[in-house]
Amino acid sequence: MITLDKIYHAKYILNSVIRDTDVIYAPHINEASQVYLKTENLQITGSFKVRGAYYKMSQLSEEEKRRGVVACSAGNHAQGVALAAQKAGIKAVICLPDGAPISKVEATKSYGAEVCLVKGVYDDAYMKALSLRDEMGYTFIHPFNDELVIEGQGTIGLELCDQIPDMDAVIVPIGGGGLISGVAFAIKTLKPDVKIYGVQAAGAPSMLSSIRSGAITSLDSVSTIADGIAVKTPGENTFDLCSRYVDDIVTVTDDEISAAILALMEQQKLVTEGAGACAAAAAMFNKVPIQGKKTVCLLSGGNIDVTILSRVIKRGLIMSGRNCQFTIELMDKPGQLELVAHTIAKLGGNVTSVHHEHANEGSDINGCYLRLELETRNFDHIREIRQALVDNNLKIVEL
Amino acid sequence: MITLDKIYHAKYILNSVIRDTDVIYAPHINEASQVYLKTENLQITGSFKVRGAYYKMSQLSEEEKRRGVVACSAGNHAQGVALAAQKAGIKAVICLPDGAPISKVEATKSYGAEVCLVKGVYDDAYMKALSLRDEMGYTFIHPFNDELVIEGQGTIGLELCDQIPDMDAVIVPIGGGGLISGVAFAIKTLKPDVKIYGVQAAGAPSMLSSIRSGAITSLDSVSTIADGIAVKTPGENTFDLCSRYVDDIVTVTDDEISAAILALMEQQKLVTEGAGACAAAAAMFNKVPIQGKKTVCLLSGGNIDVTILSRVIKRGLIMSGRNCQFTIELMDKPGQLELVAHTIAKLGGNVTSVHHEHANEGSDINGCYLRLELETRNFDHIREIRQALVDNNLKIVEL
Repeated sequence: MITLDKIYHAKYILNSVIRDTDVIYAPHINEASQVYLKTENLQITGSFKVRGAYYKMSQLSEEEKRRGVVACSAGNHAQGVALAAQKAGIKAVICLPDGAPISKVEATKSYGAEVCLVKGVYDDAYMKALSLRDEMGYTFIHPFNDELVIEGQGTIGLELCDQIPDMDAVIVPIGGGGLISGVAFAIKTLKPDVKIYGVQAAGAPSMLSSIRSGAITSLDSVSTIADGIAVKTPGENTFDLCSRYVDDIVTVTDDEISAAILALMEQQKLVTEGAGACAAAAAMFNKVPIQGKKTVCLLSGGNIDVTILSRVIKRGLIMSGRNCQFTIELMDKPGQLELVAHTIAKLGGNVTSVHHEHANEGSDINGCYLRLELETRNFDHIREIRQALVDNNLKIVEL
Repeated sequence: MITLDKIYHAKYILNSVIRDTDVIYAPHINEASQVYLKTENLQITGSFKVRGAYYKMSQLSEEEKRRGVVACSAGNHAQGVALAAQKAGIKAVICLPDGAPISKVEATKSYGAEVCLVKGVYDDAYMKALSLRDEMGYTFIHPFNDELVIEGQGTIGLELCDQIPDMDAVIVPIGGGGLISGVAFAIKTLKPDVKIYGVQAAGAPSMLSSIRSGAITSLDSVSTIADGIAVKTPGENTFDLCSRYVDDIVTVTDDEISAAILALMEQQKLVTEGAGACAAAAAMFNKVPIQGKKTVCLLSGGNIDVTILSRVIKRGLIMSGRNCQFTIELMDKPGQLELVAHTIAKLGGNVTSVHHEHANEGSDINGCYLRLELETRNFDHIREIRQALVDNNLKIVEL
């Protein structure tokens, strides 16, 4: 059974291994609330996962430690287990589906783990991990449904009680539920009045639907930018703990998560992954009743692929009027391109891409399309440029 | 005269206003050294500037406080002065050239400062600030060449002596020199054996050329991605302090700065601006002799425009083989596009942009060009895809 004593013990064990991550005030995430960020994205390995993994390993018998551990993950759990094993001097084998991104494979290897690439998808890698456990006598490190792992994650709750003793609410992302189970247990035991809110991706609400139906249910499929919490089925332990200690669970969409990732970068200079930004997204978009409350958003991790980050930024720029596209139908005669370029330059728009193509069936045979991508200041600026183009008798094609 | 006593006094005054920013271990910035990051990018306002500005204001007479302050900046100094004035309950006027980015103007206003947009460039705004000082009795807050401002920045040196007492070296960016002057004075006074290295942008090496020539010299022009340290002329105080307390000054190129910005995002989940990443760039590219040394890189700020960040990421992806472009010359007949798409897809390349154009004077009249942008894994992956295209008799145009 999970106890506060064991979470304190985990904290004692972890002190020499992990970072006591900072809590940072974030004045603009929600103007009606006082929002603080617990920066587990700045934890070693870039996520909280190393806490549970290391505590679990520290409690193995000498014989189990000698044999080693096995885990199955393409993400933060893999890196957490790999680093924890390295720090504890234990052999670790990580099973990954062979389609896993090279960058994740390399990161896992860089922490000294042995990587076992398994043909197929996640479930195949999982089966392989279990068979290695049985064959080789490895201990299987579950990513969330394990009491010791949950106690390890619960150390974040203890830290928060010290760091923000007068907090009113904590918002925590939920995938399998290991993180929130530990954090909620620790905080509700020490400070029963603090509200604990869970957040899931709208495309993967497995804990929410399980709690609503009163029993563990599995989703057929999950789809979200927050890959770290794209879990189809909650665990038994975590379902039980969430039922007892979590006040409410809400969901956030991929667009809301993207907006939060961008806001955390621009306002707080912090890189978060999809799952890591969910709590901030819930605060930003008023999914939880935190008005006037001192609220902690737990940023669970920062391991986002920069390619995806780059797309999130692009989308965020478009959604805030700082990037736009115009398609203009031009008559095919000299001076038209210059007129467009001059009109935009005069108003301070910065053209970043030009695509010019000749007539198609919908346009005049002498016409052509000019597709422009611009850096702009805001939506007013876009309207101003649009109006100036129209005033110069240029025809903007509405797409 | 600058004294350690006054830096301690500044620290005492600042304790209730600023964040004691964390120092974070960064194992992969330079594998031969132990690198730590002092995260002033996570300071309130996103840069260290608020330290000097607030300490300066705290030392004004009651009469001076009643009249208010004026400053000239489009960047971090503006926001530092604005927030410091707000916290101290002092009126602040910030003069900006009218071409300053809206985002910077808005950020400055959001901290409660009065913004005075001046027609022209930085020098015009500076003249306006001085004339407001004379007309209105405002105190002018210089961004770097002021003893109290330097003592405020020096508090970072005191914090580092506490946070990493056994540090061997500290790397600090130099623009006007206010930051390094304070930090170097504090550290060299307390721990004379610690090496202090300054870093300038290769496109704005004003302190370096001044020190080399033994007297303050002005650059005709400056050009760098690190706009926060694009300063043409060092100050007299800062020149003097750098001459006495800084062990060496090196430069980093814009490409090196970009690589450091990307590395800090990917490895450490920290957003830095150009100036803010210079110290890490110097460590990454072995500009300073830190092998085997415990080294602190001072990340001075994180206020980078996301549009620029997005370009830095793009460039970093290209330079690390994770984004590439091919231009292929196709015969204008059915099936060619499918062949290209199939070849790339089979090898796991992800096409993100396609541009198809017909013959120009250099190509066969039946030919056309296909320009593709791809997400790839690394340079080996690019070579593999290139070879497969060639093996399918597709002609890649070398640009």
